[in-house]
Amino acid sequence: MTQLLTGKEPAQAIKDEVAERINALNKRVGLATVLVGDDPASEVYVRMKHKAAATVGMYTYDHHIPGDTPQDEVEDLVRGLNADPAVDGILVQLPLPDGLDPDAVIDLIEPGKDADGLHPHSLGLVVLERSGGAVPATPQGIMRMLDYYDIETEGKLAVIIGRSRLVGRPMGLLLNHKSANATVVFAHSRTRDLPAITRQADILIVAAGRPGLVTADGVKPGAVVVDVGINRVDEKLVGDVDFESISEVASAITPVPGGVGPMTIASLLLNTVVLAESRIAAGT
Amino acid sequence: MTQLLTGKEPAQAIKDEVAERINALNKRVGLATVLVGDDPASEVYVRMKHKAAATVGMYTYDHHIPGDTPQDEVEDLVRGLNADPAVDGILVQLPLPDGLDPDAVIDLIEPGKDADGLHPHSLGLVVLERSGGAVPATPQGIMRMLDYYDIETEGKLAVIIGRSRLVGRPMGLLLNHKSANATVVFAHSRTRDLPAITRQADILIVAAGRPGLVTADGVKPGAVVVDVGINRVDEKLVGDVDFESISEVASAITPVPGGVGPMTIASLLLNTVVLAESRIAAGT
Repeated sequence: MTQLLTGKEPAQAIKDEVAERINALNKRVGLATVLVGDDPASEVYVRMKHKAAATVGMYTYDHHIPGDTPQDEVEDLVRGLNADPAVDGILVQLPLPDGLDPDAVIDLIEPGKDADGLHPHSLGLVVLERSGGAVPATPQGIMRMLDYYDIETEGKLAVIIGRSRLVGRPMGLLLNHKSANATVVFAHSRTRDLPAITRQADILIVAAGRPGLVTADGVKPGAVVVDVGINRVDEKLVGDVDFESISEVASAITPVPGGVGPMTIASLLLNTVVLAESRIAAGT
Repeated sequence: MTQLLTGKEPAQAIKDEVAERINALNKRVGLATVLVGDDPASEVYVRMKHKAAATVGMYTYDHHIPGDTPQDEVEDLVRGLNADPAVDGILVQLPLPDGLDPDAVIDLIEPGKDADGLHPHSLGLVVLERSGGAVPATPQGIMRMLDYYDIETEGKLAVIIGRSRLVGRPMGLLLNHKSANATVVFAHSRTRDLPAITRQADILIVAAGRPGLVTADGVKPGAVVVDVGINRVDEKLVGDVDFESISEVASAITPVPGGVGPMTIASLLLNTVVLAESRIAAGT
């Protein structure tokens, strides 16, 4: 029987942990969100984040500004949030409208308040295997999910398809940490004979944004398959792997939707409380 | 015939480029070194760096302070160098004496002056594939060496043994960049059946600090082998791979010494001029 790795339960476990850690802090923990413009999908995401924060007792500060806000005003908003002692985490919802420079905005976030883990400093801490900073939410969520389902990473061969800043690259680094000890393969669109590589994987993580990229003949019997893709095909949401055929081969697989998705918001909340704890520990 | 990938020529090519870029800047470029204590090896390394800087027309500022200097005084020295407009790059020679916290010292370096590329911010820029920052010197030197010898990375399988902050991790990220497009495997001491992994490598980079770790039976015929190890065995310097046997199999191999070594100091000089250029471009 193939195990279905649903995100709901491990996401709830993270949220329970966050609620406890907030309680233990004896201080309000606040997440500020910055949404520029009226992209409907972005509005939905931000609303979901606020809702999730409320369930764990986290305060949220909603900054929704017009899509034609100039770069320097967006930057001033971020500077104000950096200086605001009520704000422990800052999340700038991406993508920003055309004409705004997202790197310049993200770079301005105080690394100690970078709730999404997208600031160069946060990613550098991941390279260095140092704690206390935010970790990109999706790969962190996947690490938590593997742990929740008792999937061993030590000595395993993990193949990651996709090398995005948000998912693929930090995912590989986390699995390469001494605390995880996997042997990690970074594969991508230019990899030669991809199925020959993926067939070696004990753990296969697919984050390429291409539906049907991996089929059963690219999966080793008994492998664990984590599908990060979310693609709309014929009005249906599907991942990057062929769920039907791979379910016959893999020992465990994440569904899409309902797999990795719920982990991401829970990880954002976890980052925010970690940053709040770090600020208290540093006395700042 | 196996090609010998000596470091002298590509290192000289970098130094020539640095000298030209310094000339083009029409401004003094300065590298400050901080050496704490009297470790003889560290003294030699710092002296070599000063000597190399002089050959490219770079100014150096030598700060050699006693081994019992307290943490806060080391930190004050770094703060002073951050504020000094004559200093474009700061290098803190590692290891620091026992009792000093190297992370706290490195974290204090202004990222725009982090000549060694060890600050979290610099490493984060490597994850993000963004330019303008310093790149850890040894992996950057290896990338330059591969380029110098026209060794194609696009679509190749590159296996890296070792996951240090300074070499293995950034090495894998650089080869994974879109500008290099290799498929990258991060292997290490806990990798199961290491020879089965390394035998797949088109490019094999060994940075584990264990002499004789890789022998000919772990190398694919025609592979390129880069040996980052420097180990003292029976009064001789040897790398991590068995040079004699692998020379019969590989298409190209770096000698130890005389291979990767010379690239590292050249890369440090390159970082310093890149940082100087970035500061001028930013008008700071």
